[in-house]
Amino acid sequence: MGNITKLAILGSTGSIGQQTLEVVRALPHKFHVVALAAGKNIDLLSQQINEFKPRFVYYQDKKSQARLASADYEFLSPEDIARHPQVDTVVVATSGKSGLTPILAAVKAGKKVCLANKESLVMAGKIITEETKINGAQILPIDSEQSAIWQCLNGERQKPVQLILTASGGPFRHYSPAQLNEVTVEQTLRHPSWRMGRKVTIDSATLMNKGLEVIEAHWLFNIPFDNIKILIHPQSIIHSMVEFMDGSIKAQLSYPDMRLPIQYALSYPERLANPQLPRLDWNHISSLTFEPPDFDTFPCLKLAIEAGKKGGTYPAALCAADEVAVELFLAQKTKFVDITRYVEQTLEQHQALANPSLEEIMAADAWARQKALELATGDNPC
Amino acid sequence: MGNITKLAILGSTGSIGQQTLEVVRALPHKFHVVALAAGKNIDLLSQQINEFKPRFVYYQDKKSQARLASADYEFLSPEDIARHPQVDTVVVATSGKSGLTPILAAVKAGKKVCLANKESLVMAGKIITEETKINGAQILPIDSEQSAIWQCLNGERQKPVQLILTASGGPFRHYSPAQLNEVTVEQTLRHPSWRMGRKVTIDSATLMNKGLEVIEAHWLFNIPFDNIKILIHPQSIIHSMVEFMDGSIKAQLSYPDMRLPIQYALSYPERLANPQLPRLDWNHISSLTFEPPDFDTFPCLKLAIEAGKKGGTYPAALCAADEVAVELFLAQKTKFVDITRYVEQTLEQHQALANPSLEEIMAADAWARQKALELATGDNPC
Repeated sequence: MGNITKLAILGSTGSIGQQTLEVVRALPHKFHVVALAAGKNIDLLSQQINEFKPRFVYYQDKKSQARLASADYEFLSPEDIARHPQVDTVVVATSGKSGLTPILAAVKAGKKVCLANKESLVMAGKIITEETKINGAQILPIDSEQSAIWQCLNGERQKPVQLILTASGGPFRHYSPAQLNEVTVEQTLRHPSWRMGRKVTIDSATLMNKGLEVIEAHWLFNIPFDNIKILIHPQSIIHSMVEFMDGSIKAQLSYPDMRLPIQYALSYPERLANPQLPRLDWNHISSLTFEPPDFDTFPCLKLAIEAGKKGGTYPAALCAADEVAVELFLAQKTKFVDITRYVEQTLEQHQALANPSLEEIMAADAWARQKALELATGDNPC
Repeated sequence: MGNITKLAILGSTGSIGQQTLEVVRALPHKFHVVALAAGKNIDLLSQQINEFKPRFVYYQDKKSQARLASADYEFLSPEDIARHPQVDTVVVATSGKSGLTPILAAVKAGKKVCLANKESLVMAGKIITEETKINGAQILPIDSEQSAIWQCLNGERQKPVQLILTASGGPFRHYSPAQLNEVTVEQTLRHPSWRMGRKVTIDSATLMNKGLEVIEAHWLFNIPFDNIKILIHPQSIIHSMVEFMDGSIKAQLSYPDMRLPIQYALSYPERLANPQLPRLDWNHISSLTFEPPDFDTFPCLKLAIEAGKKGGTYPAALCAADEVAVELFLAQKTKFVDITRYVEQTLEQHQALANPSLEEIMAADAWARQKALELATGDNPC
């Protein structure tokens, strides 16, 4: 306790970044923000700089960066921030592949990495986990499902026999394929239980997000894919479960509020009292329900798990195609159901490599982005 | 691992005793039965002796004991068994106050005590926990709720802010006082989810059992009474929960099968694979439900918690009056609702002592038994 943890927050203006700063604001005697990095929202970044007074700052657009200029901090790249000696813990709260190189820089420097960016583990899980082990770094999950599993594994000496990842089912649970064909961006962004960024909210609606989490869990906890089960749990109160060899299951519960897993990753192995975090009110919880996932109506789930099992560059191609397809959908250039189609067709045409290097993973990413764009352009020629 | 644990089982012919032997039968390379002690069922004890070939045996009735005589084992008292150097772990599976002196003998000898007998902690929690600490002994709970809490606390560094004890609600959940007035012994013994002994099954129907568990949890985990909550959960899948200072809750789940908490206590800190233990089948669990307990219709719950809070000899008087009242009900000499009445009136008339010695606890026990019997005789003069 006692000591203040010095934080770098990559992706500080996104949903997880903002909620991380809410935790810091609530516990200023525990956490000190040393670095902030953001990609898009310069106004918010500017406010955050004024409030948290970091020593190091990164902003993606070099030209606009001038608007942030000040004598009080130094501009550094995300990688240099991630490995900086004045940083104890790196919160990687960016989405997509942009987290990958800073994570590698952080683990190579032996840092604690609080990881909300699942794409990096999906794309390069093998490389990241190996580097983490070699360099005595730690990856602490922020994703609510992975945090739940991690909390349930606390103190257990033996490997679990099964991980049970829960999923809300998203806004289109029980929709027919015909109904899915008609859904709008606005409907898709209305997640029933979680406050999240746009990309992950769309991925939750296709269940791609849950598929990515299966791959993430595989790498974080070193569990075979066949021992990771998905269970739809619409209330999002049980965040995941772990089954042990004696048949005992542990579950972690709370209201769906990302500040709890963020804080747990930051404060681990301690827990901290934070009056801003809600306590479950059992007077208002009469039922927790469960149902199996519908793999037929939400094929992204199966696509992701298959890509994870095949390994090599398949997961990187999956992520890249999904990122492009989701962007096109958000820009209203394709339909919701096209996301699945572009991902599936990209994977079908992907010439995968086994045990890829980081460069080969990046090449697969670039190829899959191009391919997904081509598929979309073929559908919608200008 | 490797080493075989040498077990003494006190109460081997009761429900928990028999299920403990089922675990031993399934894992013969892990556990060896060194001693068996029983109070009533001489035929079953005889079979168990033939199968498990213990070195030490106890049978309550000295006259019948001759029927068990053999050159292969030695007769010892439960206390001498509990403290014997050849015993590693003492399973206390007796019900009522008979567990008290053997438990004290075991903890004074620094043993691991796997405890299914909740009355001993209720009656003498302060003395037992103090002796456990002084002598470096360990009390490992077998009760499913306490086991769940213990499993959820595994690896946590800080004290929880709340324990949430779940309760099935028993066979008479949602009964009106008028309906309760008419229930039979047969109905009361039909527990909706658990296979248990007769005493605890009746206590589950009055909710006295849950009240005793609140007191037990208070002593086992050193948690104030006001931080122990009761939640009715009719499916008996979540066996209890623990809430931490950051608002995170952990729960332990399994089918209601006492062999799991028995085995966990025996094998702790390891878990052991046992194909006989059922695994939860999520294809058949669509809903877990919760509701607040009905303190008005089941006043035993309140009586027990109040006795626990008052402390001193109150909990011993509570246990004793309940034991007598339940026996009278099982013998069809009183009505179900009289159990509450005799316990309540006994407590009202009890002249309690604070910080009682073991002798004073035993005196309170004797007084309360007499008083409960008097109350019953007053009602039903012969």
